[in-house]
Amino acid sequence: MFKIRSLAAALALAGSVSVASAWEALPTVAPAPDDNPTTEEKIELGKMLYHDPRLSSTDTVSCSSCHNTMLGGEDNRPNAMGVNGQTGGRSAPTVWNAAFNAVQFWDGRAASLEDQAAGPVTNPIEMGMKSWDDVVARLKSIEGYRLAFEQAFGKDAISKDNATKAIAAYERTLITPNSPYDKYVAGDKSALTEQQVRGMNLTQELGCTACHSGPAFNGPGVFQKFPMHSNAFFAAKYHFKDDKGLAAVTKKPDDEHMWKVPTWRNIALTAPYFHNGAAKTLDEAVTVMAKMQLDKDLSKEQIADIVAFLNGLTGEFPKQTMPVLPTTPGTTFN
Amino acid sequence: MFKIRSLAAALALAGSVSVASAWEALPTVAPAPDDNPTTEEKIELGKMLYHDPRLSSTDTVSCSSCHNTMLGGEDNRPNAMGVNGQTGGRSAPTVWNAAFNAVQFWDGRAASLEDQAAGPVTNPIEMGMKSWDDVVARLKSIEGYRLAFEQAFGKDAISKDNATKAIAAYERTLITPNSPYDKYVAGDKSALTEQQVRGMNLTQELGCTACHSGPAFNGPGVFQKFPMHSNAFFAAKYHFKDDKGLAAVTKKPDDEHMWKVPTWRNIALTAPYFHNGAAKTLDEAVTVMAKMQLDKDLSKEQIADIVAFLNGLTGEFPKQTMPVLPTTPGTTFN
Repeated sequence: MFKIRSLAAALALAGSVSVASAWEALPTVAPAPDDNPTTEEKIELGKMLYHDPRLSSTDTVSCSSCHNTMLGGEDNRPNAMGVNGQTGGRSAPTVWNAAFNAVQFWDGRAASLEDQAAGPVTNPIEMGMKSWDDVVARLKSIEGYRLAFEQAFGKDAISKDNATKAIAAYERTLITPNSPYDKYVAGDKSALTEQQVRGMNLTQELGCTACHSGPAFNGPGVFQKFPMHSNAFFAAKYHFKDDKGLAAVTKKPDDEHMWKVPTWRNIALTAPYFHNGAAKTLDEAVTVMAKMQLDKDLSKEQIADIVAFLNGLTGEFPKQTMPVLPTTPGTTFN
Repeated sequence: MFKIRSLAAALALAGSVSVASAWEALPTVAPAPDDNPTTEEKIELGKMLYHDPRLSSTDTVSCSSCHNTMLGGEDNRPNAMGVNGQTGGRSAPTVWNAAFNAVQFWDGRAASLEDQAAGPVTNPIEMGMKSWDDVVARLKSIEGYRLAFEQAFGKDAISKDNATKAIAAYERTLITPNSPYDKYVAGDKSALTEQQVRGMNLTQELGCTACHSGPAFNGPGVFQKFPMHSNAFFAAKYHFKDDKGLAAVTKKPDDEHMWKVPTWRNIALTAPYFHNGAAKTLDEAVTVMAKMQLDKDLSKEQIADIVAFLNGLTGEFPKQTMPVLPTTPGTTFN
């Protein structure tokens, strides 16, 4: 053992220990709930369902239309576009690493990936199916799905519950490890540039990591108020307060403008930004966040450093095979 | 050598020779034009472009939205749905084995896959881009595309011409060999059921194969008039004559209701049927074709036999990896 010789040294040591434990690499496996253990068969089925536009009323919108597995896990649009060209007020969050969110949707109204998967399918402006009974009837008419559900869940197992379980099991495989940041945390000090390291430290010094910490930069808390501060200029430009967030679900005044803290993982791929997609670039998003959450005006250099760091959070996207979607031979739903 | 003992035997032999040469298996490679030899780099780039919704004005419609590579190569809808939920009057033809079409589009207005690929991108009701210049500008702003075009075509090679060449090169790989029919033709007489063989022979006896012959059942001719025969009942039900086909392009009276002969390959996966998607099932399509083209009323058994045979034309879909679409870090087009 060694002896600490000064308070300064003790603090420095504590600081370095704290930093070492604060910067965490992304796990390569996402934990599954007890009632939905991940299996290969569920993943395969879930991948089919996730990419199947026949889960929408028009046969044109799949989960992947808005949460595009080929494109950073979302649609790069300010707001998602559902059946018949309809749009809502919110931007589609990325599906990559969604398994590491404590809750799902911008307003956190779903407690699990399973719960989340049930929502858009019957939302009239998203996938527009009249009911899950209709979805189940469609799936039951397709022999390939009858087989795939049987392999994943046993005989006569086509149901809303199992469909959403399979989709969630697939989504738990959508993890992007080995970003430059992860390599840096694992000990490869050349994985981030000097500028990126400056940006990384800045996010801590400024207070960004008070909310955006942990391996997915979306904790430790689950919800945060946004915006905390505002002014007439920002209000007129971004309209963030038009949407009440969690309060739109709970109807509680305390929940007004409370939002799930979104992940920073792959943030460089998921423009535009914020719940309403009102900021077109990452520079703008960083500027807005500093001002609205921390009441700070950043210098150009600070913004550039932080953006450089955030670019270092783009991970490796695992190669995926395309599912071959089973059809109902010789007939159609529309 | 052996001696033919009767005219009947001679005819039977000639018949069997003729049948043997008439029924052809699908080639496993599609020929490429001289000015666009197929390369791995072009295929990879073409696969990215084909699946990239940012080739549309709203960032929501890719080539694969209507010609879905995961779903029989089309959308299973009566008519395709483009940007902002707009629909046209025609059903999306399958991209699988499109390399074996002599011409492209229902009206055959494109002479090659390259020509075809240029069309939907700037069609206002399909992908809705204002111009190919706008598409090229988007692609040039994406570093990953700059690299992929360079690998496929050399330096500073992003252009409409090269984009459509890459898409065509990818499409030439979309071939589905080894259908039960192909195995049967190759000598495995157990690959088709007795009913399917009856259906196969029926298509020849009735005259279907006068137009639908060759390995993709879309030749020997390129265009055919449809419908040839009609009556008030069919006209009121299917509205086939609302669309003038080739004449809508050429403005020539002789081209009225002339259409490209569509492939039968994977036809069981591509309901609904006809240029306007007016027949929901394959049974209905066979009934309509016999009546309208051959002026014949088929029995239930004949229809069932032919449909069974057509189901034997569903091939093997090669495993494909999903492209990882390159993004413009930290910004968006919409």
